[in-house]
Amino acid sequence: MSTEPSNVLETFANPNPERDYTIRMEIPEFTCLCPKTGQPDFATLNLEYTPDRHCVELKSLKLYIWSYREVGGFHEALTNQILADLVDATQPRHMKLTAHFNVRGGIWTTVEVEHHGR
Amino acid sequence: MSTEPSNVLETFANPNPERDYTIRMEIPEFTCLCPKTGQPDFATLNLEYTPDRHCVELKSLKLYIWSYREVGGFHEALTNQILADLVDATQPRHMKLTAHFNVRGGIWTTVEVEHHGR
Amino acid sequence: MSTEPSNVLETFANPNPERDYTIRMEIPEFTCLCPKTGQPDFATLNLEYTPDRHCVELKSLKLYIWSYREVGGFHEALTNQILADLVDATQPRHMKLTAHFNVRGGIWTTVEVEHHGR
Amino acid sequence: MSTEPSNVLETFANPNPERDYTIRMEIPEFTCLCPKTGQPDFATLNLEYTPDRHCVELKSLKLYIWSYREVGGFHEALTNQILADLVDATQPRHMKLTAHFNVRGGIWTTVEVEHHGR
Amino acid sequence: MSTEPSNVLETFANPNPERDYTIRMEIPEFTCLCPKTGQPDFATLNLEYTPDRHCVELKSLKLYIWSYREVGGFHEALTNQILADLVDATQPRHMKLTAHFNVRGGIWTTVEVEHHGR
Amino acid sequence: MSTEPSNVLETFANPNPERDYTIRMEIPEFTCLCPKTGQPDFATLNLEYTPDRHCVELKSLKLYIWSYREVGGFHEALTNQILADLVDATQPRHMKLTAHFNVRGGIWTTVEVEHHGR
Amino acid sequence: MSTEPSNVLETFANPNPERDYTIRMEIPEFTCLCPKTGQPDFATLNLEYTPDRHCVELKSLKLYIWSYREVGGFHEALTNQILADLVDATQPRHMKLTAHFNVRGGIWTTVEVEHHGR
Amino acid sequence: MSTEPSNVLETFANPNPERDYTIRMEIPEFTCLCPKTGQPDFATLNLEYTPDRHCVELKSLKLYIWSYREVGGFHEALTNQILADLVDATQPRHMKLTAHFNVRGGIWTTVEVEHHGR
Amino acid sequence: MSTEPSNVLETFANPNPERDYTIRMEIPEFTCLCPKTGQPDFATLNLEYTPDRHCVELKSLKLYIWSYREVGGFHEALTNQILADLVDATQPRHMKLTAHFNVRGGIWTTVEVEHHGR
Amino acid sequence: MSTEPSNVLETFANPNPERDYTIRMEIPEFTCLCPKTGQPDFATLNLEYTPDRHCVELKSLKLYIWSYREVGGFHEALTNQILADLVDATQPRHMKLTAHFNVRGGIWTTVEVEHHGR
Repeated sequence: MSTEPSNVLETFANPNPERDYTIRMEIPEFTCLCPKTGQPDFATLNLEYTPDRHCVELKSLKLYIWSYREVGGFHEALTNQILADLVDATQPRHMKLTAHFNVRGGIWTTVEVEHHGR
Repeated sequence: MSTEPSNVLETFANPNPERDYTIRMEIPEFTCLCPKTGQPDFATLNLEYTPDRHCVELKSLKLYIWSYREVGGFHEALTNQILADLVDATQPRHMKLTAHFNVRGGIWTTVEVEHHGR
Repeated sequence: MSTEPSNVLETFANPNPERDYTIRMEIPEFTCLCPKTGQPDFATLNLEYTPDRHCVELKSLKLYIWSYREVGGFHEALTNQILADLVDATQPRHMKLTAHFNVRGGIWTTVEVEHHGR
Repeated sequence: MSTEPSNVLETFANPNPERDYTIRMEIPEFTCLCPKTGQPDFATLNLEYTPDRHCVELKSLKLYIWSYREVGGFHEALTNQILADLVDATQPRHMKLTAHFNVRGGIWTTVEVEHHGR
Repeated sequence: MSTEPSNVLETFANPNPERDYTIRMEIPEFTCLCPKTGQPDFATLNLEYTPDRHCVELKSLKLYIWSYREVGGFHEALTNQILADLVDATQPRHMKLTAHFNVRGGIWTTVEVEHHGR
Repeated sequence: MSTEPSNVLETFANPNPERDYTIRMEIPEFTCLCPKTGQPDFATLNLEYTPDRHCVELKSLKLYIWSYREVGGFHEALTNQILADLVDATQPRHMKLTAHFNVRGGIWTTVEVEHHGR
Repeated sequence: MSTEPSNVLETFANPNPERDYTIRMEIPEFTCLCPKTGQPDFATLNLEYTPDRHCVELKSLKLYIWSYREVGGFHEALTNQILADLVDATQPRHMKLTAHFNVRGGIWTTVEVEHHGR
Repeated sequence: MSTEPSNVLETFANPNPERDYTIRMEIPEFTCLCPKTGQPDFATLNLEYTPDRHCVELKSLKLYIWSYREVGGFHEALTNQILADLVDATQPRHMKLTAHFNVRGGIWTTVEVEHHGR
Repeated sequence: MSTEPSNVLETFANPNPERDYTIRMEIPEFTCLCPKTGQPDFATLNLEYTPDRHCVELKSLKLYIWSYREVGGFHEALTNQILADLVDATQPRHMKLTAHFNVRGGIWTTVEVEHHGR
Repeated sequence: MSTEPSNVLETFANPNPERDYTIRMEIPEFTCLCPKTGQPDFATLNLEYTPDRHCVELKSLKLYIWSYREVGGFHEALTNQILADLVDATQPRHMKLTAHFNVRGGIWTTVEVEHHGR
């Protein structure tokens, strides 16, 4: 089982950097593996950010998300890692990532991580 | 593929300029073109503003929205452009535009732009 | 087409004037006329207020609302007028009126007006 | 038509008085009488409070609520009275009561009353 | 009727202690006993916390929740006890527990308890 | 505790007896008493019928429903009794009554009774 | 108070008379008057029909519906009358009209009338 | 782990045996044990039946349902057993039991069993 | 304004022609033009069919739907035309098309057309 | 890209083969690959069957579903294949499988396949 997502996040220039505004993305097709058992986990990701000079490019984001298909990781660790990668790629003024994982053991888990730039 | 919306936004005099109040409009029939592929995009627009001396006239707003039918543009750029046009036409005390775009590549995108007048 | 609502708003004494509290009313059966075409408009009104010495009497409010059936007026003007009439009748500590008009030209319009008393 | 609720609200000792916390109760089976016509009114009550030394006992609350079955009163007066009785019985740090009355004359009425203790 | 939950809450090291972030868990399968009658009670628990050095381990949380199956206790006392156990085990920066109990006597009860760490 | 509903169901002449058609009424404000404990029960009634020569008059139906406020009876017996009274009053071609009672002892009960006329 | 709707229902030729197919229309803006009190009634109409040689023209249907604004009539009589007018105008193979009237006296009434042509 | 439900289902005489009618009960508080692991399972039961000479008594049904709290059994076997017990107790003209079990292993399971009497 | 959709519907071989089974497609992004005014119309299409030897290829269906963007036509005529084109391309054992058009003049229109093959 | 699911479906003996009854399973975590592009597809599966002598074992079903994670196939072909495998394993009296695939190209696709045994 590989443990590294392999795709590269691409960006494009923010068309309105002079203004603070908000971009939200709902990504219901996230799947990864349980690091203990290797069995699949599923989540819906909600991303919200205020771009500075870069916006995340939609198609590269889709491929980046898909690259977790064979990656094992705990809910808390993966959510922090995805935020870190998105922050590295876009250097946003603000970014929040919320991952709503499917029920396991009768319990639904959500992890919400936030980055404050500048 | 043309790239310019062609209609003119018309206004009427705010009947109660002495008071700050809020007008909200939900516009579920926005469609434009993808600037890369020329294929259609669809969105629901939510506009909220506090008029100063001018209110946007409903019928001209409808025609303005329809004029994007053959316009290509990225989600972020178009949302900023529509807000700018509405601000130019009405010079509001405050205005916020939220564009909820339909799913593309398994991802739903929303862009929310805000203008603070006076 | 007449242009004046004819009924009188009645009040009763606030049974607990020593305390700030909130009364909300949802009124889904508002109809008036378009001032341009004479065709019917429909709205749901949401009223919220903190009474001072007077509460609006329910039956007279119903009749007042019904009196708009033959009145023509723009969404923004009518919502401001209704708030003004209710403020005149009850002299509240605070009052907010939100009018959710039915779709016209593919667009749903809401007008929200607020009065701060004392 | 009697006009007095007859049951007594009982309490039990707050098991965690050292901590501020919140108790909410939804009570969909409230019915009383219209003071003008004697006809039934119906409401859902939502109670929210921060107990100090006393919590309201569930069964006595149920009986207290049922005791309004033959009581006549205006929406505003009854909601204030119920809050007052509950405050008397429990001396809470904070309490809010919201009564959502069923439609009468095409209008839904909600009354929300709040008490700030200590 | 036993009155003590018997399982031990386990934790794992917070993978990102340098950042404040939020973990939420919805646990719809909580059941305990009424301390007066011995009859079953049912609730959905919502846990929300900001971990410091420890995160609660999912499987041990599931077993801990199940251990209340034969425990009797009042809604208010049990909710405070569960929060206390979770605080003891994880020493969080912040934690909130909301327990939505099923209807009894026509009344739905919710208890919400909060802990502020550090 | 009285055990007899006292109001009279009135009817008006079916304006279109030459055609089979359907009238449905949703009545969410039904309350009666438990024959064992005297405590209130609550239900929503759904009536559906094909009139023959008589339609049930709305105001008398409202009063008839309200007359159960002090009547004790089991769910099954009361639902059958109400249907029987409505059949007696209107002699319909077909009538169905569904009573959705509120939860008691953790169980929601619905009783559905049907009459085939002619 | 006038008692006659005044507009004319217009039709256009069914573009596919060789095939049985279904047209449904939801009309949420129907209002008329109570024949006893003169007070407004409100309903949502649902029309479903299989056209034979004629389809009902949308704009004339809208005007026809609006013409009931000053017409008094019982729920049962008006629903039958509207169906009769639509049958006269279009001579459909099948037509069903369902009128969902707003609550009066705590009771929601629906009338459903059906015509079988040919 | 005991494997036998211990309570007795009681009945009362059907007040209208001359008519076929339907009783439905929704029971959201069913819990039992997994026969393999001993861990709790949860389900909502929906019962629907046409009584012949006996109706199931509500309180004994509640106790019967609660008696499964310590019983282990597969979803399919338990649902069939509960139906069999209810048929034995009431000898209905028709009875259907649907058990909606909570998610296990990412899969929600429902079992629906039906009995045709006489 | 062009009046002809220009794309070609492509098919692939039904992988299981020996069995009758059902394929359903929900297509929320249909837009065309009003033949009278040239203004945009919007609809959600629901297609359901039993393939015989050919299934409709998803990408060509998407392009076919998009080709109506500049086509004018009445709701009834367009829905029949789209069904006819899909029947020509796939020769299905059964096919039904339902088009839910957005509100115009306060009225929502749905057209449902069905083809029975073989 | 492998093209074969590798796990084995296991069964257990139907505990009530003398009776026809229904088992339904909702499986929201199905993912496979597009045979053209290798990109992930996602679906919710709904299985409904009447067992004969064998019921499908829950854990092996979960593993069988997960084994499609690296399998490429068209929606129509995969749905037929899964039904065939389940029929082979359980020889049911009746079985229906409905696969609701996520949106691709703005279109949601559902495939419903049915087997009639004995």
